[in-house]
Amino acid sequence: MNELYDIAIIGSGVAGLQAAINATIRKKNIIVFGNKNLSTKLVKAHRIDNYLGFYGKSGSEIAQAFQEHIQAMNIEITEEKITAVYPNGDSFMLAGAGNMYEARKVILASGVELTRSIENEADFLGMGVSYCATCDAPLYKGRSVVVVGYSEESIHEANYIAEIAEHVDFVPVNVKTDDLKSSINVVKDVPLRIEGEQSATRLVLKNQTLNTDGIFVLRDSVEPSQLVNGLEIEDGHIKVNRQMETNFHGLFAAGDCTGKPYQYMKAAGEGHVAGLSAVDQIDKENAGIQ
Amino acid sequence: MNELYDIAIIGSGVAGLQAAINATIRKKNIIVFGNKNLSTKLVKAHRIDNYLGFYGKSGSEIAQAFQEHIQAMNIEITEEKITAVYPNGDSFMLAGAGNMYEARKVILASGVELTRSIENEADFLGMGVSYCATCDAPLYKGRSVVVVGYSEESIHEANYIAEIAEHVDFVPVNVKTDDLKSSINVVKDVPLRIEGEQSATRLVLKNQTLNTDGIFVLRDSVEPSQLVNGLEIEDGHIKVNRQMETNFHGLFAAGDCTGKPYQYMKAAGEGHVAGLSAVDQIDKENAGIQ
Ligand SMILES: Cc1cc2nc3c(=O)[nH]c(=O)nc-3n(C[C@H](O)[C@H](O)[C@H](O)COP(=O)(O)OP(=O)(O)OC[C@H]3O[C@@H](n4cnc5c(N)ncnc54)[C@H](O)[C@@H]3O)c2cc1C
Ligand SMILES: Cc1cc2nc3c(=O)[nH]c(=O)nc-3n(C[C@H](O)[C@H](O)[C@H](O)COP(=O)(O)OP(=O)(O)OC[C@H]3O[C@@H](n4cnc5c(N)ncnc54)[C@H](O)[C@@H]3O)c2cc1C
Repeated sequence: MNELYDIAIIGSGVAGLQAAINATIRKKNIIVFGNKNLSTKLVKAHRIDNYLGFYGKSGSEIAQAFQEHIQAMNIEITEEKITAVYPNGDSFMLAGAGNMYEARKVILASGVELTRSIENEADFLGMGVSYCATCDAPLYKGRSVVVVGYSEESIHEANYIAEIAEHVDFVPVNVKTDDLKSSINVVKDVPLRIEGEQSATRLVLKNQTLNTDGIFVLRDSVEPSQLVNGLEIEDGHIKVNRQMETNFHGLFAAGDCTGKPYQYMKAAGEGHVAGLSAVDQIDKENAGIQ
Repeated sequence: MNELYDIAIIGSGVAGLQAAINATIRKKNIIVFGNKNLSTKLVKAHRIDNYLGFYGKSGSEIAQAFQEHIQAMNIEITEEKITAVYPNGDSFMLAGAGNMYEARKVILASGVELTRSIENEADFLGMGVSYCATCDAPLYKGRSVVVVGYSEESIHEANYIAEIAEHVDFVPVNVKTDDLKSSINVVKDVPLRIEGEQSATRLVLKNQTLNTDGIFVLRDSVEPSQLVNGLEIEDGHIKVNRQMETNFHGLFAAGDCTGKPYQYMKAAGEGHVAGLSAVDQIDKENAGIQ
């Protein structure tokens, strides 16, 4: 049996971290999924003036202060991308790249993807288009695939796919390819459209078209609507109330994924409330109050 | 004519400051009312662990970082208690102790008063009970008053009242009386109830009853419902939506005054959103979009 966590937090940006801090203070057993470098968006910011307490600092300086904060509280980050969350009676199951996790409450703090999706991507999802190397690479044993990589992590995932597939084309989008295996064919071009009949068989780029048996689209995050089936979305963002509750009991959301303004302090404030709301639900349930 | 501010912010706690930072970055002409020491609640906190970026610091250490932040941005605090806010067509009028201010948008970030009100206090308000020394002291020329003081500021206010009234009794509630004028009679006792017929004439304390011509109840803050006539209140707090809008167009609220959890990061996050919402409204109105 898997360990049952009190709270699983998906995302290690400010929203996820602030939720984690509160849940830890309230003595909950938590797991935080994300990146050890916290958040690309945080680290890459040139200069941040609007987070009260830090003026004129760079994103990486502030990230350093955040790292020290969570380390002092023994909060660890599990580097695993969650690809799906399933309600499961009184708890939730979370599917990682190779593991399942179980938690009583889940907080979605996964940010927003600023890159636009490729035309037809959603239509072919599960029909030759995959977001998860670990889940789906085995389907392509001895076959040919295209990987469109948007994140540092996509490099490692592509290397893993290359162990299984016969041929891998890699289309990098704002990502360095130095660490790619030499057997992988790097195609520097701009992805425009996915085509195919029953399933995806062609990736149309600006200057060429790649024929393939399958296409992996590997970004840092997963669209919330794809992460949780039936999640209520409003104007493209997760719908929440002032307690940061979504339409699923026990499932909360915070930060950029709940809507604009896309900013640190809004994300942190919401993470704070989401963390405490989850804690309160657990405490009430433990006390027998529904 | 008074200067017309873009945004007036009532409160210099984290909520008010975070709103001020954003409004300043967005080049709005603002005024922040509160205390130069920011917020008693902030400064008095022994140790704060749940504000991401600061771990194990005292309230006054964090307040120092906040002071440096606002000073670097030339944000000043006007030490004046606002006693009433009046909608005035496209703007709002704010009544201070001795001045009126005008602003297009107002953000209420006044925190919550943790001390309970004195029995009958609300019933006698304006009938022998006053919250504002500067406004009402002149009514008591040559007469006898009781001041119940909850804040450092109440000391100065009582000294001012003593210049006008014939006799002043001062009942301190968690406040040092060293700086009170020697002519003021300090009564160390616990206020229980206000009594009187047409108007308040007796303050019943635990061990004695003071007869008086009027009673000043001087706290750091003013109840939001008394600050703005007609403000929608829900469960004792200002009702806001996710954009931090109240039921008045152009009037926003953030922080403890909008409800629990009473915590820094929740207050900061809301102040952030309130600040940007006010800015957006102004920008849209300036562009001719209603
Ligand atoms: C260059 C730049 C500069 C900026 N400057 C400012 C600024 O000055 N001031 C300001 O207020 N805002 C600024 N922003 C915006 C700010 O970065 C965001 O508002 C903030 O990062 C949002 O925090 P978040 O926690 O909601 O999400 P994010 O910071 O995006 O964090 C989300 C995290 O979740 C992880 N994740 C996502 N999906 C999954 C999954 N399925 N499984 C596991 N992990 C997952 C991601 O890898 C990421 O680590 C800037 C943004 C950029 C890009
Ligand atoms: C001892 C103590 C320890 C705490 N520890 C923690 C902690 O560890 N972590 C945590 O998250 N929270 C803690 N809190 C709670 C935290 O202090 C509050 O949540 C936070 O201060 C709320 O911020 P705010 O901006 O909404 O209001 P406040 O900080 O209360 O600020 C309101 C400001 O508005 C001013 N004001 C009010 N009315 C008016 C008016 N009419 N005119 C002009 N100015 C006005 C007040 O003087 C004050 O300066 C603690 C509180 C206390 C008392």
